[in-house]
Order: sequence, then structure tokens, then C-alpha cells
Amino acid sequence: MERWDNMLNFSVPEYKSRLIKTKESMLRHGIDVLLVTDPANMNYITGYDAWSFYVHQLVIVMVDEEEPIWFGRAMDASAAKWTTWLHHDHIVPYEDDYVQSTEKHPMDIVAAVLQRKGYANKTVAAEFDAYYFTAKSYLQLTKHLTDAKFVDGTGLVNWIRSIKSDQEIEYIKRAANIATDAMYEGVNKVNVGVRESDVVGDIVRKQIQGTPEYGGDYPSIVPLLPSGEKTDACHMTWTDDYYQYGDPVILELAGCYKRYHCPLARTVVLGEPSQEVSDLSNVVLEGIGTALETVKPGVTCAEVEQAWRQTINQYGYRKDSRIGYSAGLSYPPDWGERTASLRNSDDTILQPNMVFHMIPGIWMDKYGVEISETFRVTETGCEILAGVERKLFTKTSEIQPLIS
Amino acid sequence: MERWDNMLNFSVPEYKSRLIKTKESMLRHGIDVLLVTDPANMNYITGYDAWSFYVHQLVIVMVDEEEPIWFGRAMDASAAKWTTWLHHDHIVPYEDDYVQSTEKHPMDIVAAVLQRKGYANKTVAAEFDAYYFTAKSYLQLTKHLTDAKFVDGTGLVNWIRSIKSDQEIEYIKRAANIATDAMYEGVNKVNVGVRESDVVGDIVRKQIQGTPEYGGDYPSIVPLLPSGEKTDACHMTWTDDYYQYGDPVILELAGCYKRYHCPLARTVVLGEPSQEVSDLSNVVLEGIGTALETVKPGVTCAEVEQAWRQTINQYGYRKDSRIGYSAGLSYPPDWGERTASLRNSDDTILQPNMVFHMIPGIWMDKYGVEISETFRVTETGCEILAGVERKLFTKTSEIQPLIS
Repeated sequence: MERWDNMLNFSVPEYKSRLIKTKESMLRHGIDVLLVTDPANMNYITGYDAWSFYVHQLVIVMVDEEEPIWFGRAMDASAAKWTTWLHHDHIVPYEDDYVQSTEKHPMDIVAAVLQRKGYANKTVAAEFDAYYFTAKSYLQLTKHLTDAKFVDGTGLVNWIRSIKSDQEIEYIKRAANIATDAMYEGVNKVNVGVRESDVVGDIVRKQIQGTPEYGGDYPSIVPLLPSGEKTDACHMTWTDDYYQYGDPVILELAGCYKRYHCPLARTVVLGEPSQEVSDLSNVVLEGIGTALETVKPGVTCAEVEQAWRQTINQYGYRKDSRIGYSAGLSYPPDWGERTASLRNSDDTILQPNMVFHMIPGIWMDKYGVEISETFRVTETGCEILAGVERKLFTKTSEIQPLIS
Repeated sequence: MERWDNMLNFSVPEYKSRLIKTKESMLRHGIDVLLVTDPANMNYITGYDAWSFYVHQLVIVMVDEEEPIWFGRAMDASAAKWTTWLHHDHIVPYEDDYVQSTEKHPMDIVAAVLQRKGYANKTVAAEFDAYYFTAKSYLQLTKHLTDAKFVDGTGLVNWIRSIKSDQEIEYIKRAANIATDAMYEGVNKVNVGVRESDVVGDIVRKQIQGTPEYGGDYPSIVPLLPSGEKTDACHMTWTDDYYQYGDPVILELAGCYKRYHCPLARTVVLGEPSQEVSDLSNVVLEGIGTALETVKPGVTCAEVEQAWRQTINQYGYRKDSRIGYSAGLSYPPDWGERTASLRNSDDTILQPNMVFHMIPGIWMDKYGVEISETFRVTETGCEILAGVERKLFTKTSEIQPLIS
């Protein structure tokens, strides 16, 4: 049966080794078939890459069948042929009248496929809490497969992804170069009297164009640039207002290369920073420095967070939210991998070629500071991936207050 | 209790009228409480706007309480204060250790809120098939609320959204102007020997910058620019390859203003189009023209599609997938509203101020053509919203074949 593999981002053996690890984990958990809905996990196993996750689609991994099945909308079968290593008889399309219908649901067909393959009374895992695996998908599957045992497979593939291959690291380093360029573009362009949307326009152009050597891919999250008092709201995007003298501006963005991410955040003050912003940024910088020094194989996520926590507590600050998370391959709406978090309840042991975004933002009432680094765990410590100066950027010399 | 409303995109009365329509629909369906998870529906009812839908969040609408509750991650409560019309005691945050935890789930708290409010034995609707309402969310809610009756509320708010207010139409028209600029940017920049990612970089800059009068918002889907043989795969994005002489290039993109979208597609051929692409585009153009002439209040979606179908059948073409869908307010991963579709099984009756993206793409084996329009249903017919010439663009005069 025909197979194209001219658009693969990794060798077929690398994809197959990922599949083997997935099956090994399935066996350990007593799972006969795994329904993979998270687009990043679908990509990881098969290579599949298209903006089609707004309709139901999934990859079916069966422990006793060599090759998985891609299941998706008929018009996306071509993208599956272009981007996956699967033989074309493992690409199973569904008809368009199943799309956003109130009467037909794509999971009706998935249930029929599983029945035909002999899994109707087996243990079926689905990613219960993954993006795009809806309650309705679960209800349709369990309605048809009454003899199957359904178990939660959330995170099974994600955890395999947490340790990267050398080629994945290379892709993340390319993403880091793009992130560096995009961040400096933003830091340079943000200024008093400039429109927020114009700055973000320049940033996204850099993100997508990439470098002269390689183009960029779309990051899973758009640039987040809260400014002024809105810096207390870390996930707001931008407006078409004009920056004012004295505004702090947070820039959180990522570079992306072939779906691999390097996220990065910096804070710029347009003018002389207030004492409180200056104090806060010094604490964040010292905290992130201490935490990064702690990173090496064998240390836990909780220990890294503890180093941060002890530092900021000395200055009377506290932060209740996690200070980072595993990152890499992903699709909207998140560039995190939803496995290990840098927080005090997480005992994950760091291993070489894990990659984390450490983003210990602190948000007070109507102001906030974010300064972050994405790092790779090395054999002996950590490697910072982007190349942007780690400091509070200020624009005092270059700019003048607006006279309005 | 405090309320800020300086960032609202619509008047508080407009939000309240949406809420009233939602409650009326809930009453008709016997629903006591509706859990709204689709970020576009959350925005529609409350104004909430932030890139925080990668963690669990929702809006709780109770038939017998005047104001809904925003429920989300603690660090996003500030964004809820900035962007919603809700009084701040209706903004209910959850602690960060519920984020992507295997032990705690935000729906545990939602269940407790519903219990406290007296809904534990009432009829609870959730958007079973909406983005970001996962199987796990459903399982946690039903585990705690064993006496509640759970029903499917998918589409309830979406259907209310299908008829736009005049201000919503004005926002879509601004999005249409942005789409027009972005499309011409793409049509002008795409050329032989140019890198795909560079063209898309210029397009996204236009999308985000917007016009001199108003800035752009991020579209819910990135530009889709399959080229060459990959034009048979409509949802592929772009690469860092260089365009070749003879390539057809599909450009599908949207303008976006304050989350309101105007999607648009055109096809460009870099050189003389092949006979098959030329023939196909003529059929698509005639078909879309005939279908648009059919549009007016009282006509059904199926009748519009039928006009298209009869036209293309005359030329021996067929298309099994829908030719369009209701569009407007939305968040990734989709700019469609997931209500009415222009297809033969859809008897939705067109009404004034409905907005559709009519995109009757046809994809053959290794080539395809997409030419689309977003239109508003008027009192007497339809209004095309973007201003890009409706034709197959060719670049024969301006360009020379690359000598490689």
C-alpha cells in the first residue's frame, strides 16, 4: 500500500520508536487500544500536521497492530497522506455530514471501527482531559461500546514526550533563535506613542518568517502583551491603544519551529520604573537565577521551585502558582506539555533533555513582572536556550514623554 | 460590589439582552443551570477575553439569578475584572494547584458551587461537544452531582449568536477590511522564488496591525497556504520552501476585530494556470455566484447549497462537503459558529444579519481551488463583506520562471 514520506520532520524509525514506547506504556497500564486526541500527541506518533483539530479526529493505537490508524474528516485525509508515515490504508476518513451535525457523530464510526477490529470488549483508553476530547465524544463511544472497559489515558503519550531526542532539541533550539529575534523585535518596537497592535504585528511577522536559514511555524499561543495596569492580567493579548509614558509592558511569546516551541517572557518599562516594579523585578531575577542554578538531573521539580520560593520569601514576596512547566511539541491552545510542573507538589525527577519554561511571574494589584527562560536539562545542569538579556528592560534614554 | 467596565466591547444592556435570550432558551429547554465552556460563548455573555482557555474555565448561567458567575484560574481573575461586566463577587477563582493536576480537578469546585447554590438536584446543562469541555470535566461533575440531571447544552448560546446586532455587524465589517488588506498583501507577496514563511509573515503582520483607524485581533485560525500539489489538502499551513513556477497557491485567512471574524479565500497561480485549474476555478466562480444570488431571508441553507450543486453538476463536478457555515465571534481553533451549515441536510432559514462564510472549495487529486466570500443576509438579499476581486489570480506578466 502506498506511503509518501517526503514531508516527515523525523525519520520513520524515530516515529516508530515513539510508537513502541507508547505501546509499552499501554501494556504496563493494561490498555488494549488508545484513542489519541491531543493534536500534539497525534503529531508525535504519526507526524500528522494540519489545522484540522476544530473537527473531531484522532489516532487509534492498538497494542497488537503494528501501525496506528489516523481517523479524520474526509477533506483532511490528503493532509494525513502528506504529513504522516502511515500507509494509506491506515488513513480512515469520515464523510462531511458528520461534521458539526446534531444527528451524526464521528465517534459513532470510531466505535464501529473498534468493534470491527475486535476491541468491543477490551480495555479502551482515551485522553479524558485532553483538548478536543469532548464529553460528547466519550458519551457516544460508551453508548456504542457497552462491553468495553474505558480508562483514562490522559498524559500517557505526553509523559513519553517529556524527554526529547537530539533532533527534537535541535528543533527547539531553532525555535529559541526565532524567539530571540521576535523578543528583540518587540523590545525594540514597543515605545511611547506606538500602537499596541503595530508592535504585535511586527512580532508575529518575525515569529512566522523565522530566520534566513529556516522559517517559523505558528506558536500555539499568540503574543501576550498586557501593558500598564493590565500587567496584573497575564493572559490578556493586546489592544489598539497607544503606549503611554511610564507603562510597564509584559511580552510573553514563543518561537516555534515545526511545532516545537521555545517560550520566553520579558518586561519593558517605558520610562523610569516605579520603585515597586523595580523591586519586584530584582526579586524575580534573583529568584529565577537561584532556581536555574538548582537544575540538574536527579533534582525534583519541587526542589527547583523551593529554591525560587526561599529566595522571594526573604524579600517578603509570595507566589502561589507554579513557576514553570514542561514544554516542546504542541498545538493551540497551549505550548506546555501538561506533565511536569515546577511546583511544590511535583516530585518529577529531572532528566537530561527535558525542557521547561520557567516563568515565575508575579502579579500584584494592577502591576506585574514576568521574566522567563526556557531551559534544557543537561548531564550536569541546565542550558538556557534563548539569547535575550535577562533583565528588566527600560526605555529611559531613547524616549521622551508624550506631550498630549 | 465593585465593577469595572472600561474595556467592554459592547454596552452592558447588550450583554444583558444576550443573557436574557440565553435564559429564555434555558427555560424552553427545562434547564436550571447552564455551564458555558466555549470561549466564544463565555465572551458573548460576559465579555471575558483572555488566552486562558488552555486551563479549565467556564461561565455559570443560572435561570433564577440575575448575574452569571465567571469561574477560572486565580491568575486570570484580573482579566475577568478587566474585560467582563460582572460584579467582582461573581468572579470565582480557583487555586493554582488545580491546574493540570492528576489529583484535583477544577470541576470539583464547580460541583461544590452548584451544590451551595441549590442546584445539586436540578437540571444542569453543559456544552457536551464544545471545545474545552472535556470528558473528564463531565465525569467529575457527574461524580459529585449524582442527583442532578445532566443534559446537553451544546449550541444553545451559539444559535443565539447566529443573528448579529448592528454593532456586531460593524465589527465584522472592520474585520472584513482587515481581511481585504491581508489578502491583497498575500496575493501581492506570493511569487516564484519567495519563501512561503516570508509571505505568511507579511500576511499576519497585516492581520494584527489592522488599519490605520483600528488594530486587528488574532484570527482563530492561522493563514492556511497550501501550495503546488498540496493544494489538495485544504488545512495545511505553510513551510519554508520557496514557491515554484506554475504553483497554484491557496490563501485562506481571516480578518479579526475584537474577536469578530471575516474569513476569506482566494487562489493564485504563479504562471499560466493548467487547463484543469482554470476549468475548476471557472466552475467554482460560477457556482459561488449562483449560490450568492439565491441568498435572501426565508431561503434555507439547503436551497443555497442546491443552487451551487446544480451549477457544478452541469460541468461534471461534485462536492460532498458543505459549502459554508455561520461565522462571527470566535476563539481558536475555529472561526465558524458550529450552528448552520450551507449543506443539503440543513433547513435553517436565513434571516437578516446572519453572517456566513461561503467557501465552496473543490479539491481533486493533487490540486484544488478555493474562492470564498463572507456575506451578511440583508432584508432583500446579501451583502458581500470583503472587497477582494472574486477571480482566479494569476501572475504571468509580473514574474519569470526561476532558472535553477
